[in-house]
Amino acid sequence: MRGKMREPAADKVTAILETAAELFASKGYEATSMRDIAQGAGVSKSLLYHHFTDKYQIFTRITSQSGLGLNEAVARAIPKEASASEQLEIFMRTTADFFEENRLSWISASQEFWTSNEAQMSLQMKLRRDSFETMLRRILEEGVKRGEFQISDVRLAGRMILSSLNWMYRWYNPAGSRAARDIAGEYYRMIAFGITPRGEQG
Amino acid sequence: MRGKMREPAADKVTAILETAAELFASKGYEATSMRDIAQGAGVSKSLLYHHFTDKYQIFTRITSQSGLGLNEAVARAIPKEASASEQLEIFMRTTADFFEENRLSWISASQEFWTSNEAQMSLQMKLRRDSFETMLRRILEEGVKRGEFQISDVRLAGRMILSSLNWMYRWYNPAGSRAARDIAGEYYRMIAFGITPRGEQG
Repeated sequence: MRGKMREPAADKVTAILETAAELFASKGYEATSMRDIAQGAGVSKSLLYHHFTDKYQIFTRITSQSGLGLNEAVARAIPKEASASEQLEIFMRTTADFFEENRLSWISASQEFWTSNEAQMSLQMKLRRDSFETMLRRILEEGVKRGEFQISDVRLAGRMILSSLNWMYRWYNPAGSRAARDIAGEYYRMIAFGITPRGEQG
Repeated sequence: MRGKMREPAADKVTAILETAAELFASKGYEATSMRDIAQGAGVSKSLLYHHFTDKYQIFTRITSQSGLGLNEAVARAIPKEASASEQLEIFMRTTADFFEENRLSWISASQEFWTSNEAQMSLQMKLRRDSFETMLRRILEEGVKRGEFQISDVRLAGRMILSSLNWMYRWYNPAGSRAARDIAGEYYRMIAFGITPRGEQG
């Protein structure tokens, strides 16, 4: 992450963003003050205000970076020539990997006062979120077309898959024994093949 | 919900709890003040403080009522003699039903500053949450024992099932065309049978 010739100012901005993500994730957006962020990042309040006009701008920077990164990381990881099943598995594993690597920003971006209030969300964020869901739906639709998947409601299948991944931030322990991507792999297997033995009638 | 011979004081308490749940759900716990609650419920601040020492106590009342109600409703709905598959389907549908009927309390209880901070949660709430998860795991374990389910990690299967239900409060639209229980029914089918055709190898 850290460049060799990094400018001190960039280092400060990085420290501010990392501290803010940590505070938003642990205390919540509302309960975090600009003072907390300045103190945690080891910068003066005047320097903090030099870089960011307010807390909202810091928050937006964190969430837009992490949203942008997720879409790109997942789109890049999916091989265009793979089967829909492989694409789905990679979609899920890569999302979980990104979550693990950007856990604090992810938790910040998931603050529900934000996502539950569509009006507050910037148009850019909404488009990004929708394009992520669309990427998943295309995989599912393509799989149905090819006969790889049998899905009565693609929208709802997408919702269920995203739910399993989205909920991880509420319980996942990074110090635990399983990596997030392995959990996502297990989720994939259950969703792809179901939990009733394959001999049974579906 | 309303009893015929209800005492006025009980009506006031109900109004306070309903208003508070609505405010916690829309603005979040932190951003809601005792003044907001009194105003919304149409009671004086002194009456509010007569019934509740602080905001935290109101919050705890709401979340404990809804947690208690969920466990009871689901336990009552599950027929002991049914197959594990039927039990799982009923578990999921009844949970979704309860969510739909108690949406605002549910959203309040899901505030993440709360659930992400185990220390803040009362022992009673933790036990209730754990016993709910345990109820689900028993169904899954029983299903594995009877050969009805094939699950490599029951804990993780339980997590995935609960994730699908828990995430609903973030997107479910009560004015939409599908009832929560029908969505849960669709989730059940996908989890039970998978999204790849049953002819295929699992």
